[in-house]
Amino acid sequence: MARVVVDVMLKPEILDPQGRAVQGALGRLGLTGVADVRQGKQFVITLDGAMDADRAAVLERLAGELLSNPVIEDFTLTVQEDS
Amino acid sequence: MARVVVDVMLKPEILDPQGRAVQGALGRLGLTGVADVRQGKQFVITLDGAMDADRAAVLERLAGELLSNPVIEDFTLTVQEDS
Repeated sequence: MARVVVDVMLKPEILDPQGRAVQGALGRLGLTGVADVRQGKQFVITLDGAMDADRAAVLERLAGELLSNPVIEDFTLTVQEDS
Repeated sequence: MARVVVDVMLKPEILDPQGRAVQGALGRLGLTGVADVRQGKQFVITLDGAMDADRAAVLERLAGELLSNPVIEDFTLTVQEDS
């Protein structure tokens, strides 16, 4: 079993109104000095069997084409091998 | 500057239809052996100054009350100190 985590985040130059709203709320609710908040998506993918180069290549492609929008989002892919 | 990452994920016993849809799409698009996909949210919070016990306590509380729904979601809070 392999566990792959794909984090998808708006590119730094894209405004993030959701993050801005959370930033305001955190401040009002007692957290001081919040400089910035960005909100993204996280996909936790569990695969049968081990990771190999083929699967890694397919995952890398799909993370860029299916799980994120390359026009406005960046992604990071982390493999956590379990077995 | 401290960087805090809050990952919010549906509890394991809660059905995740978005994750299920992604699981199906990954399979159709060429990734074999996808056992499970869960989709969650990620908040990246940048704080002025260093983390201390007070701020950590406020963050822990707000992550549970504001950023996640404790009825259906779990969260993990990771502090990445920068300075």
